[in-house]
Amino acid sequence: MKAAILVIGDEILSGNVQDTNSSFAARLLFENNISVAHILAVADTEQAIKEGIKYLFTKADIVISSGGLGPTRDDVTKTAIVSYFNTELVFDQAIYDDLTDRYTRSGRPLNTLNSDQAMVPSNAEIVRNDVGTAPIFWIEQGEKVLVTLPGVPSEMRHMFEKILLPRIVEQFGSGKISRIILQVIGIPESDLAMKLVEVENQIEAASNENEQYKLAYLPSMGTIRLQIIGSGDDSTKIENNINNFKEQILSKAGKYIYAEGDEGISTYIGKILREEQATVSTAESCTGGYLAHLITSVSGSSDYYLGSIISYANEVKTKEFGVSESTLEKFGAVSEETCREMVSGCLKKFNTTYAVVTTGIAGPTGDTDGKPVGLVWIGVGNKDNMIISSFQFRRNRIENIHLFAMSALDMLRKFAVGVD
Amino acid sequence: MKAAILVIGDEILSGNVQDTNSSFAARLLFENNISVAHILAVADTEQAIKEGIKYLFTKADIVISSGGLGPTRDDVTKTAIVSYFNTELVFDQAIYDDLTDRYTRSGRPLNTLNSDQAMVPSNAEIVRNDVGTAPIFWIEQGEKVLVTLPGVPSEMRHMFEKILLPRIVEQFGSGKISRIILQVIGIPESDLAMKLVEVENQIEAASNENEQYKLAYLPSMGTIRLQIIGSGDDSTKIENNINNFKEQILSKAGKYIYAEGDEGISTYIGKILREEQATVSTAESCTGGYLAHLITSVSGSSDYYLGSIISYANEVKTKEFGVSESTLEKFGAVSEETCREMVSGCLKKFNTTYAVVTTGIAGPTGDTDGKPVGLVWIGVGNKDNMIISSFQFRRNRIENIHLFAMSALDMLRKFAVGVD
Repeated sequence: MKAAILVIGDEILSGNVQDTNSSFAARLLFENNISVAHILAVADTEQAIKEGIKYLFTKADIVISSGGLGPTRDDVTKTAIVSYFNTELVFDQAIYDDLTDRYTRSGRPLNTLNSDQAMVPSNAEIVRNDVGTAPIFWIEQGEKVLVTLPGVPSEMRHMFEKILLPRIVEQFGSGKISRIILQVIGIPESDLAMKLVEVENQIEAASNENEQYKLAYLPSMGTIRLQIIGSGDDSTKIENNINNFKEQILSKAGKYIYAEGDEGISTYIGKILREEQATVSTAESCTGGYLAHLITSVSGSSDYYLGSIISYANEVKTKEFGVSESTLEKFGAVSEETCREMVSGCLKKFNTTYAVVTTGIAGPTGDTDGKPVGLVWIGVGNKDNMIISSFQFRRNRIENIHLFAMSALDMLRKFAVGVD
Repeated sequence: MKAAILVIGDEILSGNVQDTNSSFAARLLFENNISVAHILAVADTEQAIKEGIKYLFTKADIVISSGGLGPTRDDVTKTAIVSYFNTELVFDQAIYDDLTDRYTRSGRPLNTLNSDQAMVPSNAEIVRNDVGTAPIFWIEQGEKVLVTLPGVPSEMRHMFEKILLPRIVEQFGSGKISRIILQVIGIPESDLAMKLVEVENQIEAASNENEQYKLAYLPSMGTIRLQIIGSGDDSTKIENNINNFKEQILSKAGKYIYAEGDEGISTYIGKILREEQATVSTAESCTGGYLAHLITSVSGSSDYYLGSIISYANEVKTKEFGVSESTLEKFGAVSEETCREMVSGCLKKFNTTYAVVTTGIAGPTGDTDGKPVGLVWIGVGNKDNMIISSFQFRRNRIENIHLFAMSALDMLRKFAVGVD
């Protein structure tokens, strides 16, 4: 069974917007052992959309489209569908009531453009959009399926991952699939691969015509999701095998692996802090709030996260943390010594179990005194102990900030759980 | 004349790598008035590449491919080309000498895999790759052209922009294009569209066979980029027309439009603060550092951004901003009164020109005392004045945080420039 993705939008073809929806969907399909044959981007015209659907149906069993479902005039996916399937738009009272309800609750009037969203292709099964106003269509024609999603990434991602993917996997997935995901942090992909050469050889050798095994590295910036997939008919055997591979991976690279499953590093840290009834505060210079943002992205983080001082200016470092002016003068703001005094000051100010501190140079400007862009000092401590480390990255500003914050979270993890 | 882009690589279809080459090429082609009809991503197989070329040649005059030109086993673009054009690979002495020279200078041996790069399709014109070892092919067949580029983004970008684009524009370019982008904040897409109905009608009516005009809404979460495009031969006339459309849009929705061009809201705020030599500090509860992160994402923000207190815990609000315990008790942390005291406290602590404050409930838990998830109080003030407003969003946690922060930036913008 094969899938294809149809990306609809002039803004993609003009390069004004980077399409990320297709990559998101492709990754999730891949992880569920459904292969994507094509990704095709076409213009916001009925003709282009129709031809796109037609072409992709020659290559795939399921076509997943994104875009062109909004309320404005350049959104023509719906009329293209109606024309392609030779059907018509019909009024759907349930959607209309839902829209009316949503608008009433938000205190805004339902205008004509929005109420038009209740007009839907007569051959479509309607999937309610939990996070936006454009309904989603699931249309079957013989063995083929077209699923239309909105182009707004947050809506597309939520609806695809939570609602549509499980159904697609059930309908189009093949064989039994077992999958283990290991969350890796603090090691580059190539170094990890070197540690896992033998395991990879074993995984390759275990595959035969009845069973297939695969190890995939799914890197994000600063973390890697390591995925072991097994597929075939004998699910017990496959599960045993991938568990065995997992154990071998843990024995080779266990200290970089913080969790099994889909748990992000911030969620994991929340879990361990809650378990030991600990609290944390942060003091950020170069990460400018991003470290706090990662921690507070987790619902319920107010149980263990007390607050932060973002000390962008040196006088804030002095006033809020008592970093001495002589330290700043002698060693500079980006230094082990300043970092150390910030950790002490942060623990004192917030009275938390742990404090995490960053001070560095995100760039692209700001390199001084032989301190290059991308250098960061990170400190983590409690009342008894403190660890200060430096890292050097070579990315752009936004990526450096992200890598600084991920490194800080990893240091907090190791410090809290006692990993070397 | 139309172009199409063929992206070659399994890593794109599995979602493991985000393709950015196509967006880069599309933007440059668009800006040179060459419209991109399709972007198609296919697998690393001869069959898929051949079918991709064939399909795109039915849609476009020039096909630009990226990927599959490397020396390893999974790079099959060259053999696919040979098979598609029914031609053969021939040895090219000039490329071989060039490769030998490059490897000699870098002190590495030229292995068989690399020397195979001197084998090239007999019908290809060779374009020297200034930044890598894979040669680039320019292949003409009748009126159609196939140009193959390497997939490594730095190589692809350099060679496309500097070497190939000028030639493509000369051979395929026609007419002139003008474009205006307006940056919109603080209004939903459908409300904006309602305000612009008349202008949209005019834009549509102005198009004829010699000139085309189009208005496109490019929404992100909390902002919209509004793009007016005109194309045709009479560039003066087109520029006049799109300027006229712009003026009409400004007269209908000017207060939501903060900039013309590609400027993000944080960059814009940085600009106005720098112009008036003002500084800003923040105090964040529910946005948990994200507001500070947006402000400090801009390089050079340390010139006007002094710092923030993230007061996740109530005791931090009291200790750091002097929010009175009676206010917290009587009105709660998420209230106009607490917000007001946080603004005063923030101004006092950081001694900045402006202070921006958020206190709300990002969710999904935390609704209390009749205060729903998604409610936020935002305050902005200086020593003379203060504005406190509430907003209600209905998204997930991460999106609510983003929308809270965007609303805060918009309030700062309006406060600083004096927009109602």
